[in-house]
Amino acid sequence: MKHFHRELEKIKKMILSLGALVEKRVRQVKQALEDRDAAVAKEIIHFDHEIDQMEVDIEEECLKIIALHQPVAADLRFLIAVIKINNDLERIGDQVVNIAQRIVSMAKIQIAPYRFDYAEMADKAEAMLRMSLDSLVNQDLDDAIKVLHLDDEVDKIKNEVYVLIKTAIADGVTKDIGYMINLLLISRHIERLADHATNIAEEVVYMIEGEIVRHGRLA
Amino acid sequence: MKHFHRELEKIKKMILSLGALVEKRVRQVKQALEDRDAAVAKEIIHFDHEIDQMEVDIEEECLKIIALHQPVAADLRFLIAVIKINNDLERIGDQVVNIAQRIVSMAKIQIAPYRFDYAEMADKAEAMLRMSLDSLVNQDLDDAIKVLHLDDEVDKIKNEVYVLIKTAIADGVTKDIGYMINLLLISRHIERLADHATNIAEEVVYMIEGEIVRHGRLA
Repeated sequence: MKHFHRELEKIKKMILSLGALVEKRVRQVKQALEDRDAAVAKEIIHFDHEIDQMEVDIEEECLKIIALHQPVAADLRFLIAVIKINNDLERIGDQVVNIAQRIVSMAKIQIAPYRFDYAEMADKAEAMLRMSLDSLVNQDLDDAIKVLHLDDEVDKIKNEVYVLIKTAIADGVTKDIGYMINLLLISRHIERLADHATNIAEEVVYMIEGEIVRHGRLA
Repeated sequence: MKHFHRELEKIKKMILSLGALVEKRVRQVKQALEDRDAAVAKEIIHFDHEIDQMEVDIEEECLKIIALHQPVAADLRFLIAVIKINNDLERIGDQVVNIAQRIVSMAKIQIAPYRFDYAEMADKAEAMLRMSLDSLVNQDLDDAIKVLHLDDEVDKIKNEVYVLIKTAIADGVTKDIGYMINLLLISRHIERLADHATNIAEEVVYMIEGEIVRHGRLA
């Protein structure tokens, strides 16, 4: 039993290191987006395999523990939640890479023909990720629920970006349609990043409450 | 033991019914896209909760079986794979809803200002979903691997759509930028749908081989 709890602690540490790494990448890509920094963006893309490898290791570890120790109730729920949170973290990593690719593509144009300040949207998404991981560490329902509400705000900004960019293209603000489409896609990637943070928060609620709160049941 | 195998059979039936329902929705949205049929699209959106409910039921059932019967090795791997495939099927349902929403939005314009034939891309994505589910039923590695290859073709078409639409907007083919952006987003939704089918195929490979093949390890 002692051995089992040591294994659970190890898993907790592993998922939190992955969380910390993914958070770092989100911060980096946010900064790269603000600075239109293709070099940093390329580095982010280059190091994505680290996240991928950690995800595979964590899943294998969880399965090993379930098979060896046959946990039940809260422990089993925790391990299944970790498998799913692990998956969401890896997919947040994919969204970071998607954003980085857009930055590389946009940086080919020397002077930005149009600027949209993603700071507010990216800050909210980053806060959602941080709070979802905090709620996991502290098993804190309040934090988890805050994440679910923030998601609506991110969606709202995404819709605003859409209108802004559509109007700018229609008004012929710039001839570079590719650039504008990249801007639009970035807002979609940030939104999906926030969606994965929401999934993590939902998993935490499930872990604490033992009830599945997906599909807006909580609202 | 007999009881346990009956439970596994039940889970298999549940996940295949969900798969069949999701396949049906994919076919419906494909047709609605071709016909620009907002009425069918609205119906698809309206009935998404059926998929959501089935997902929740399947996950609860899997957890119950793991907790009660403490399966190991192949049986445990099967149940964990079902939990993940379940999740991917539900997200395919979300992509179908996203496409349906685009159709509703585009149908507000009486005469399509620009046509893109999504049949090839949608057919491939649909085939991927079908083959990934077949590979699950038959535990067939070949089918699963075919899905992974088809995914590259879908990505290629997505990139072609991007260039086509970007050029059409730049050439002023239509003043309706919103319509064009919707077309572009549809190609992204189909691509994500195909991504989830790829995840399912990867899970099947994992189930059969006992090795995680994510992140292009197979290629």
